[in-house]
This record gives sequence, structure tokens and C-alpha cells, in this order.
Amino acid sequence: MKPLDPDTGAGMTAPLPYVLITSVDGEGRPNAMGAAWVTRVSFSPFLMMVSIGKDRYSRKLIGETGEFVICYPSAGQEKGAMYCGTRSGKKGDKIARSGLETVPSAKVRPPAIKDCTAALECKVVGEYEAGDHILFVGEVVAVQGDPTRPKHLFATAEYKLVAMDPEGGA
Amino acid sequence: MKPLDPDTGAGMTAPLPYVLITSVDGEGRPNAMGAAWVTRVSFSPFLMMVSIGKDRYSRKLIGETGEFVICYPSAGQEKGAMYCGTRSGKKGDKIARSGLETVPSAKVRPPAIKDCTAALECKVVGEYEAGDHILFVGEVVAVQGDPTRPKHLFATAEYKLVAMDPEGGA
Repeated sequence: MKPLDPDTGAGMTAPLPYVLITSVDGEGRPNAMGAAWVTRVSFSPFLMMVSIGKDRYSRKLIGETGEFVICYPSAGQEKGAMYCGTRSGKKGDKIARSGLETVPSAKVRPPAIKDCTAALECKVVGEYEAGDHILFVGEVVAVQGDPTRPKHLFATAEYKLVAMDPEGGA
Repeated sequence: MKPLDPDTGAGMTAPLPYVLITSVDGEGRPNAMGAAWVTRVSFSPFLMMVSIGKDRYSRKLIGETGEFVICYPSAGQEKGAMYCGTRSGKKGDKIARSGLETVPSAKVRPPAIKDCTAALECKVVGEYEAGDHILFVGEVVAVQGDPTRPKHLFATAEYKLVAMDPEGGA
């Protein structure tokens, strides 16, 4: 082991689970952003945490509405998932442009991404500043998913997306 | 897609990056716990977040000393990494019993796990309650690692450990 610069060290921790975070504006128009800084943080209640850049449009929407859905895009959705991860949704309907489709959620206004592996519907219960990002802690109030699509996407150190199932199978 | 019970949905998000969190007590005695609820949360400053159960010994140690190291155990360290993830360090030296060894860190008192892929040395800058866990946000003050050991461990839905490199290669 030897000293490493921080960026090199961070790259060595990849791949990271890759998700699309959906939210809605005041008129119910949906948006989706790509994120890899996301994790469960509590068993009971079932809480998830996602870290979102302070200047992101999704930060504004989630801060205003208190709801978001964490969607795990499945194998085959790489192109649309990457599109949503590299464009802003401030102007127009990013989800439609990405080629992805949505389905209604059970208990929150933001939709789920159709055909994703799992979608965790969250209501914000905590919001904390952390450097250049905001930590949104959400209680999972409903879950839907597709067990026939077990492979979901991970972001590599080179920021490509690779698919893996819950047992680590490629 | 169909409604899923929360545990099923959570299982479908695996595998999760698996780390060992090292800490020290007031006399400098080291401990290590396994964790999978960990992620980067800020670019600048470089902040990491780990969620630790309220009743964990490591929560007490990190809360008292304000320091921890996030170590990514490498391929071949599965047995020791699993040992540290399933035993408490309240009694005796868990790291020694696990068969793992330690090396000194550069800027904090907790050591790094020898031969791990990467070790991120953290000083606590935020601590938040989230359900049955505590979120510790740490600023990364130094990094060491071993680029010749790129494969590190992920916890599967069946709580086995599998090794993968930063590009997703098994």
C-alpha cells in the first residue's frame, strides 16, 4: 500500500450502484437524474439516502415536494439511463427524450421508470448539507419492481454502465 | 413491474460495496466492523458517509474520537472481512482474531487494513440520526491503497462476498 491522490482512491472504489432519481415539479411534470451516491441507511424504518448536488434541478424539486423515487435501471436500459445522467431536466421533458418510459407510483407523485429492476418510493424525512451536495433521507413507503429483470446497472471508474444481478453475476 | 414487499425490493438492489470501518478506543486499541451502507457524498471537500447501527461498538468509538478509516478489502480477504462483519469488537481484539493485519494511517489514529484495495482516512464533520442508524459524514484527509489489488468485495443479496475490479470485471 502507498499514498494515493484522492481521485485515484475514489476511482478504486468503483463500480457503484447506478440509479435514476425521479421527482416532479409543482405541476406534476416528472424529471429523472442519474446518481451513484445512494444507499440504504436504516432497517426500521426503511430509510434510503441519496446525495444530490446543490445546483441540480432535482435538488430543487425534491426540496419543494418532499418526494422522490429511487429507480434501479435494468440491463438493456443503459442508453436511456446514461442520457438522464448527463443532461439537465430544467428545459423540457428529459425522460421522453431519453427513450425511457414511466409508470405511476403507488404512494408518491413522482413516477417509476418502466421496466426497471426495483423502484423505491420515498418521502423525505431528513435533509442535511454535506459539502457541495445535499443528503436527502427518505422513508420508503412503497416498492415495486420486476423480478424477471434482476440485472441492474453499476457505474464503473470510467463511467460506463455494466449490468449485474443481486448475486454479482454479469 | 408489480408491488414488492420492502425486503424483496432491498435485496434486488444488491450487490453492495463492502467495506471495513476501522476506529480506535481511548487507548488507541483498533476495531473494525463490516458495512455496506457507505458512499461518497461530496466532491469538494471530499466527503464520505457511512451509516452505523446505534447499538454498534464502532458507533461509540467513532462518536468519541471523531475518526474512522473506510477500507475496501481486496480479493482473498473474504474470510477475514466476513469475520469482522459478523462479530462484535467489544471484547478483545477482533482484527487479530480475523486473521487480518493493520498498517498505520497517515493522518488519523485508526489504522488501515493491510493489503486492502483502498483506505480512505476520515475525520467526522457531521453526525445525523436516521432511524435505527447514525449517519457519520467524514472528510477524507488522506488516502492509501494498493493499485496491484484492484479487485475488492461486494456483498450479495445472500450476504456472500464477491470480488470485482473498478470496471466491473469479476
